Amino acid sequence: MKLYTYFRSSAAYRVRIALNLKGLEREDVFIHLRQGAQRQTGYLGLNPQGLVPTLVDGDAVIGQSFAILEYLEETHPEPPLLPADRAGRARARQLGLIVACDIHPLNNLRVLQYLGRELGLDEEARNRWYRHWVERGFAALETLLTGTPGTERFCHGEVPGFADLCLVPQVYNAGRFAIDLSPYPTVRRINETCLALPAFADAAPEAQPDAE
Amino acid sequence: MKLYTYFRSSAAYRVRIALNLKGLEREDVFIHLRQGAQRQTGYLGLNPQGLVPTLVDGDAVIGQSFAILEYLEETHPEPPLLPADRAGRARARQLGLIVACDIHPLNNLRVLQYLGRELGLDEEARNRWYRHWVERGFAALETLLTGTPGTERFCHGEVPGFADLCLVPQVYNAGRFAIDLSPYPTVRRINETCLALPAFADAAPEAQPDAE
Repeated sequence: MKLYTYFRSSAAYRVRIALNLKGLEREDVFIHLRQGAQRQTGYLGLNPQGLVPTLVDGDAVIGQSFAILEYLEETHPEPPLLPADRAGRARARQLGLIVACDIHPLNNLRVLQYLGRELGLDEEARNRWYRHWVERGFAALETLLTGTPGTERFCHGEVPGFADLCLVPQVYNAGRFAIDLSPYPTVRRINETCLALPAFADAAPEAQPDAE
Repeated sequence: MKLYTYFRSSAAYRVRIALNLKGLEREDVFIHLRQGAQRQTGYLGLNPQGLVPTLVDGDAVIGQSFAILEYLEETHPEPPLLPADRAGRARARQLGLIVACDIHPLNNLRVLQYLGRELGLDEEARNRWYRHWVERGFAALETLLTGTPGTERFCHGEVPGFADLCLVPQVYNAGRFAIDLSPYPTVRRINETCLALPAFADAAPEAQPDAE
């Protein structure tokens, strides 16, 4: 499998964790987002959105991290990254999608660039925007993690899965923007539990060959 | 099943279509987003994000439209809303997630309110923001629909599914913002094909009891 990735991309980070948890080898192709490699014709032919990651597995060319995660779960079911029961699967997906739909897309590079270039926001206003959506999302996550059954060592149960592999990259990004995580003790606890595992540590931005 | 919904919510619209396609009865509970009902304690207890939709099915309380769609597919597999082959499933999910992750979350009510109240953008600047993300997303969708195999009567194959039920609500919203759809003829064609089906027409905002 070939993964088009960028060390700091939160969505690529998710997929790197999933591949590691499932013990799948990959060949990395590095798309330097800050240098605009995602907007070059060759990459746009694979991923017309110009976003990373893209997974290529034989004839399958897949964009959108959650589509990739579901594909990996279907093609390589062991170890499972979703629980067996349907309500649990829905909970795990919901927790992950809070990050993947309602935090990250508001805060990724193309949006921050629009805020700066098109709307003329200074760094302080851009950071306020960033923090706002992270804090809204983490507050909901913390409430669900503490208030609904299923949270154990990980977001859902005793093994890591979809929710955890979305949570960890978002906590990493929150750290870059110096967001106070003290209101989210369960988010922090699970993040630390995950980072102690090689599958997570090896997927971290700093551990990638294209890290700067 | 009980669906917490708002007639104009694009994410609720997706789930209404899915329930209709699967022939599932539902009881609607209306959450008036413009009046702030999503921020009242009772609803936040079900959905701490304060977003619609939420599906309640027995003990399962599920937020995030894509988690709900996957849950419905697992609990009520007929008729399927994803193709049988894994690469096809990935493609259908990717097409849907382009809308659900990278168009809609940037343009929903809470974001437009932030742009107005916190950033002081006037209506013209808010509309430019809105159009920007729709046009970026639709351009990618059109390219994938015309450039990758699988598109037939619907986004993927001869029956409607995940991608279509994301596309149609987004086209509806684009219409509200008077976005020129002429650069996306395949998006338009599929939208029209879908709207001719009762499952889609009955899920439309205007057909809901809470429509204004």
